[in-house]
Amino acid sequence: MTALISEDLIGSLNAKARTAHEDDFASLDRQLSRRGIDIEAMVERAMGWSVAVPTWGVGTGGTRFARFPGPGEPRNIHDKLADCGVIQALTRGTRTVSPHIPWDKVSDYKALRQEAAQYGLGFDAVNSNTFQDQDGQARSYRYGSLAHADAATRAQAVAHNVECIEIAKALGSTALTVWIGDGTNFAGQQNLTRMFENYIAAMETIYAALPSGMEMFLEHKMYEPAFYSTVIADWGSSLIAAQTLGPKAKCLVDLGHHAPNVNIEQIVARLIHVGKLAGFHFNDSKYGDDDLDSASVDPFRLFLVFNELVDAEARGAKGFNPSYMIDQSHNVTDPIESLMGSAVEIARAYIQASLVDRKALAEAQAANDALGAHRTLKAAYLTDVSPLLAEARMRQGGAHDPIAAYRADGYRARVAQERPEVKGASSGIV
Amino acid sequence: MTALISEDLIGSLNAKARTAHEDDFASLDRQLSRRGIDIEAMVERAMGWSVAVPTWGVGTGGTRFARFPGPGEPRNIHDKLADCGVIQALTRGTRTVSPHIPWDKVSDYKALRQEAAQYGLGFDAVNSNTFQDQDGQARSYRYGSLAHADAATRAQAVAHNVECIEIAKALGSTALTVWIGDGTNFAGQQNLTRMFENYIAAMETIYAALPSGMEMFLEHKMYEPAFYSTVIADWGSSLIAAQTLGPKAKCLVDLGHHAPNVNIEQIVARLIHVGKLAGFHFNDSKYGDDDLDSASVDPFRLFLVFNELVDAEARGAKGFNPSYMIDQSHNVTDPIESLMGSAVEIARAYIQASLVDRKALAEAQAANDALGAHRTLKAAYLTDVSPLLAEARMRQGGAHDPIAAYRADGYRARVAQERPEVKGASSGIV
Amino acid sequence: MTALISEDLIGSLNAKARTAHEDDFASLDRQLSRRGIDIEAMVERAMGWSVAVPTWGVGTGGTRFARFPGPGEPRNIHDKLADCGVIQALTRGTRTVSPHIPWDKVSDYKALRQEAAQYGLGFDAVNSNTFQDQDGQARSYRYGSLAHADAATRAQAVAHNVECIEIAKALGSTALTVWIGDGTNFAGQQNLTRMFENYIAAMETIYAALPSGMEMFLEHKMYEPAFYSTVIADWGSSLIAAQTLGPKAKCLVDLGHHAPNVNIEQIVARLIHVGKLAGFHFNDSKYGDDDLDSASVDPFRLFLVFNELVDAEARGAKGFNPSYMIDQSHNVTDPIESLMGSAVEIARAYIQASLVDRKALAEAQAANDALGAHRTLKAAYLTDVSPLLAEARMRQGGAHDPIAAYRADGYRARVAQERPEVKGASSGIV
Amino acid sequence: MTALISEDLIGSLNAKARTAHEDDFASLDRQLSRRGIDIEAMVERAMGWSVAVPTWGVGTGGTRFARFPGPGEPRNIHDKLADCGVIQALTRGTRTVSPHIPWDKVSDYKALRQEAAQYGLGFDAVNSNTFQDQDGQARSYRYGSLAHADAATRAQAVAHNVECIEIAKALGSTALTVWIGDGTNFAGQQNLTRMFENYIAAMETIYAALPSGMEMFLEHKMYEPAFYSTVIADWGSSLIAAQTLGPKAKCLVDLGHHAPNVNIEQIVARLIHVGKLAGFHFNDSKYGDDDLDSASVDPFRLFLVFNELVDAEARGAKGFNPSYMIDQSHNVTDPIESLMGSAVEIARAYIQASLVDRKALAEAQAANDALGAHRTLKAAYLTDVSPLLAEARMRQGGAHDPIAAYRADGYRARVAQERPEVKGASSGIV
Repeated sequence: MTALISEDLIGSLNAKARTAHEDDFASLDRQLSRRGIDIEAMVERAMGWSVAVPTWGVGTGGTRFARFPGPGEPRNIHDKLADCGVIQALTRGTRTVSPHIPWDKVSDYKALRQEAAQYGLGFDAVNSNTFQDQDGQARSYRYGSLAHADAATRAQAVAHNVECIEIAKALGSTALTVWIGDGTNFAGQQNLTRMFENYIAAMETIYAALPSGMEMFLEHKMYEPAFYSTVIADWGSSLIAAQTLGPKAKCLVDLGHHAPNVNIEQIVARLIHVGKLAGFHFNDSKYGDDDLDSASVDPFRLFLVFNELVDAEARGAKGFNPSYMIDQSHNVTDPIESLMGSAVEIARAYIQASLVDRKALAEAQAANDALGAHRTLKAAYLTDVSPLLAEARMRQGGAHDPIAAYRADGYRARVAQERPEVKGASSGIV
Repeated sequence: MTALISEDLIGSLNAKARTAHEDDFASLDRQLSRRGIDIEAMVERAMGWSVAVPTWGVGTGGTRFARFPGPGEPRNIHDKLADCGVIQALTRGTRTVSPHIPWDKVSDYKALRQEAAQYGLGFDAVNSNTFQDQDGQARSYRYGSLAHADAATRAQAVAHNVECIEIAKALGSTALTVWIGDGTNFAGQQNLTRMFENYIAAMETIYAALPSGMEMFLEHKMYEPAFYSTVIADWGSSLIAAQTLGPKAKCLVDLGHHAPNVNIEQIVARLIHVGKLAGFHFNDSKYGDDDLDSASVDPFRLFLVFNELVDAEARGAKGFNPSYMIDQSHNVTDPIESLMGSAVEIARAYIQASLVDRKALAEAQAANDALGAHRTLKAAYLTDVSPLLAEARMRQGGAHDPIAAYRADGYRARVAQERPEVKGASSGIV
Repeated sequence: MTALISEDLIGSLNAKARTAHEDDFASLDRQLSRRGIDIEAMVERAMGWSVAVPTWGVGTGGTRFARFPGPGEPRNIHDKLADCGVIQALTRGTRTVSPHIPWDKVSDYKALRQEAAQYGLGFDAVNSNTFQDQDGQARSYRYGSLAHADAATRAQAVAHNVECIEIAKALGSTALTVWIGDGTNFAGQQNLTRMFENYIAAMETIYAALPSGMEMFLEHKMYEPAFYSTVIADWGSSLIAAQTLGPKAKCLVDLGHHAPNVNIEQIVARLIHVGKLAGFHFNDSKYGDDDLDSASVDPFRLFLVFNELVDAEARGAKGFNPSYMIDQSHNVTDPIESLMGSAVEIARAYIQASLVDRKALAEAQAANDALGAHRTLKAAYLTDVSPLLAEARMRQGGAHDPIAAYRADGYRARVAQERPEVKGASSGIV
Repeated sequence: MTALISEDLIGSLNAKARTAHEDDFASLDRQLSRRGIDIEAMVERAMGWSVAVPTWGVGTGGTRFARFPGPGEPRNIHDKLADCGVIQALTRGTRTVSPHIPWDKVSDYKALRQEAAQYGLGFDAVNSNTFQDQDGQARSYRYGSLAHADAATRAQAVAHNVECIEIAKALGSTALTVWIGDGTNFAGQQNLTRMFENYIAAMETIYAALPSGMEMFLEHKMYEPAFYSTVIADWGSSLIAAQTLGPKAKCLVDLGHHAPNVNIEQIVARLIHVGKLAGFHFNDSKYGDDDLDSASVDPFRLFLVFNELVDAEARGAKGFNPSYMIDQSHNVTDPIESLMGSAVEIARAYIQASLVDRKALAEAQAANDALGAHRTLKAAYLTDVSPLLAEARMRQGGAHDPIAAYRADGYRARVAQERPEVKGASSGIV
């Protein structure tokens, strides 16, 4: 294993924090005990948790107006893996990375797998890209890809996805995530039904190429880059497509891809109900697909999503086995810091949701005690599980405070030396 | 046939408008001819069009803050039928009424059918009501109905819907519309999945009572009266329920029941794609379920919905046979006027959508000529088809200007004499 | 002082909770000490906090579809004061009530003041009502009140507000809150500018009647009951009106009266900047003006609002002296329980915001350390201050767990006996 | 004058359309005459109308995901002026261009003015840019510009705006438009009030540099590029700033910069009321700041905005003198076509609003005839004024159908030869 961050540093920082941590942890233990909760079981649970980091997430993002890269931007998949390795080393809850093709293409995937393993990392869902044109590409995706009016362009997009399946096999990944930007900017630009039919037909060809044990995740999004209509704009469209394709096709929920005010946790519940929940792209948002850090805008919403997940797990919902990924755009922060912070916040929501007294909740629900039921959820949400999460990290060799340790280590300054700035370059999505 | 509005009056008003009308109609004819459109075929089409009027729509509506009834409020289904008869007499495009049970319950449905027939009216979908408590009702719907935590309450709501099916049979109606307000005001108040399961199980019992030839329309709504979650909040939930229930269950689209910014015409396209479009509750809205007059806020959106319908008809989409109903709340206008105006605007959107040059549209789409395709739609939308709609009305005995004729007739003042004000009474939904 | 809830009961329940409470409180004390925060100062701060309860809030609310009253609904202002007294007795953080005229009109306001004082209550802002018609009222508010097209109707609405000022004087209240429903349901229904001019002219007359020391709070709302336009729809319109009226006129912020996605805390900051923040109507919402319990939908948003308030207090913002009121609709809960729970959650946000390390925050901001600054806020938000709030309550004679104590006491069952159900009656807004 | 499009071609196409046009125009004339409207006066009005074209609008736009440039992209301000000249030559309603600095910087502004004059173009408001970093710039705008935490960065942004004022003087422009992207992506990232104070102080310095006769337009925007808060997020913030700065500062309304569902026409009315309406950036949108073609999403909304403008003009509103500019992003169309189409649609809304029978409207409003008033507006909106607009264009030498003429001319193919593709280059905002 390659140590990207000094283990001595982590150890000494953790040691400094030890006394206060132990007091806080013991206090939480006594409080949870009084509520009938075994803190050790919860620490185990926290240690078992992991969320995938997207390779593109370690580069600085931007908007259509501008992108302001920081020092030490990763230049390629190798730099990105190292950055992801830092996140895992300090948080111990991000054991896989989710690559993006063609940005992360290499000649030797076996070697890439070994490289990742050196950092304690495996590969999660592979993401295809048919929303940008690549150099030398025969046909443009200006007017769409899998749903394009022209069959040859659709075929090109299908071939790219089939290639991604091959790469996923080589990387040991068990899922292909398909998000397309296809849609229209004008009423009438395309026939809404024909686009959907084109999409489904193209997806059927890709589906046919899925090997046994590999799934296909369909990602819906309300708008952007298309601003009048989007082919897979909502979970209803995603569900119809997944139903048509077959059991290996499931619906991915990105928290920022919904209409304003929508109750996302109920969408999650519905997808679980029909056995079609693929998993998540975690982020937070206030306006549109803002791709902000998870739990930075509405932490209670994230908790409520996890409440559905823990409930489904508890009742043994059929076919329930979601994948968890972060998908954020870090425009004004060090991406490594944002991803570490987000990984911690997502784990927090998971553990808080695990604290819900489900027996008391069910009783209040049966009695139509609306406030009692709500307060049962809130009791879990209000619990400050920070010491529990820190304990889980430290037991696995991670940092008491990952961001503080990262800053103390100086990793960013170090790689800034090694990675010269490339004018105008972007690590993917701006 | 009972003449609610003086036929002489209609005749003399139409005669006065004749010269100008003929000039406008002839001008439109020449313009359409140049575009290859036969105005006579369009007049026929307009004459064939009909949208149902909701019986509750002829009473003044309101909000949770207040309701301000006007003179001559209908006191019962008999008054309501007369008011609906006026609308049909003047517009000739509202040949059915959609009743609401228990508000419109009577002892003799055969007689009610004859009473309606005297006004040239038949019965459209019957609407059940489990969102209000009725006097003497055993169990309250405070916490829900078909999705209630308690089986006995669910059974009561099921029985009410089964009774509605019987009434529908007696009235010659071929559909039951089920809209429930069930949901929660607090996260945790109920288990989101269990509510959905309760709803589906209850609906299965109702479904089993449907006679041959009768369909069940599921109406989704994002929120109100429940403000945290609603069981059938979106078309995705509606679709899962309809799929589970079977072929007689379809999804109704109310234009005001969606999240902000949602592309409604694409939802319509998706429901047509899976053969599950039940039909519409027409109204318009700016903020929430405002239930404003159709086409008063966003007439282009209504046109785009009809563009999908006319397209589906033109391509012979499988199972395409939607029902059309108005569902509005008239808080500050004479409801008869608003309903007549809305009936005309809906017919306008239907005819404008029928003018779209679908061959040119398809060619522009195939060529990715986004602006050309859009302009093809817009050319139809910008056409002022008022003379064509007036011609269709007049050929059937209706009024050149229904609202002007209604005002000239003095119907409202007449019924205000016959219908004394009932303090605090409401004709249904406030 | 009249004891509405058994003080013995409160005492014995608090005693039972004592051991666990002391452990939790001591743990929090040690944790806060390590962060340089004096828990005693915070307890003092919590003890000094108070939020007004609206008299109409203790009755069950509803929607335009239905209202489902519970047992023991208050029949008049006397019942309402008792219910408010219960809330104060148990939470010790609701020392005033905000009355609504004409619902709370009495013949002897001096006696009413004494009656309230017996429960430890005073009077906060008086709310006028020109959105409903009252029996015997000369002119209807169907088409508006202070902005009505007709001068006589405007004068009637002005006179009502002037009467409210007199009542406020008699009750020792120092503010009049003016919320009007005036607006339109149709584009063109009224001239948008003329309505605004009518409103301002009417308000100027009311303003002139304000005695020294009394302020006027203008409450804006995006929509409902008007669904196309509302005269005072946003804080910009509210601000123009308040600026035109003079220094006694200020802008009230109701958390549920904004457009979707709006950054409310920044609106609060802007109103503080111009010295025009009147105060708040607290509630929470997911879709529209849902009037849900405070902090039940988005507790972090409430915290961020208080972060602005505490920041303004800390920097001594000029003219900063907001009033705090709850304004909720309790449709499915016991209103007393909801109001107690909400009072606690609002106090929680206030205390959490008081924990923010403002020096560290300012340093992070100066260094553009976006994540560091955010984490400084989050550290305060994640702190579970429940023991601190409970301590403040108990030191003042309140309950460790107000809702549990209320349930144990049986107050609701008791008043249900004394207050017979009135068919069809509403305590105000449904 | 340089003829960019063959005048012979325009003449021959117009001649071909003549017969049909004359029939349609005469029909409209008769219809309007019956409504008491003089078509000649309206043609004059249409001929007097003009809207500015943004220089950046003639380049292909994009999103953060991708930009798909088309053939013949303009390489510099000279190419852009030619493209704008084409738009003016064919539509005759776009007599000015709005430049963007530094993108359109040249060494000789006098020459540029002459170059523009050759195409019949003058210069409208100059737009500054502090939302992107330029090569060689001393300080980055990553964390803001005029509201930056650091005084030196603010000073740099001030200096840029002062330079823009100088350029505006040289170009004969009478306004500076200031839109900044300043804001935050995280709660707490900056102090919301301090940012606003920084902004105002910086703007005061710029304001001081305004020469006599030049105004400053403040452009608010809800979000993007900042996703948690934006300094000038709404018209309320814009208004406070404009009030603080002085009479030369006014508020610009971009149709796509508002919260969902907001009533934009009422905001326009409010800004007119306080004499602070600077003017418009026209575009249309369905979700966020989609920057779609004007009137392509909600043409009735555009009409309602113009209804306010025509009403203000008719009543002689004090200080009413707005500037009109298009601001769109053309991602999937030929920008010249989109801008011509948009110019026509904006003129359509202007003329339709001019057709409103304001006397009948005022009478209906005075009588609270909500539906009558609304129908008065709708009568104007439903009028197909296409022949009137075409007549106004042709009388000035423009094309009966600008887009058809443009396509027939082959301008795009011609410039595609002259303007080689520049890899990765953008004409400004992607």
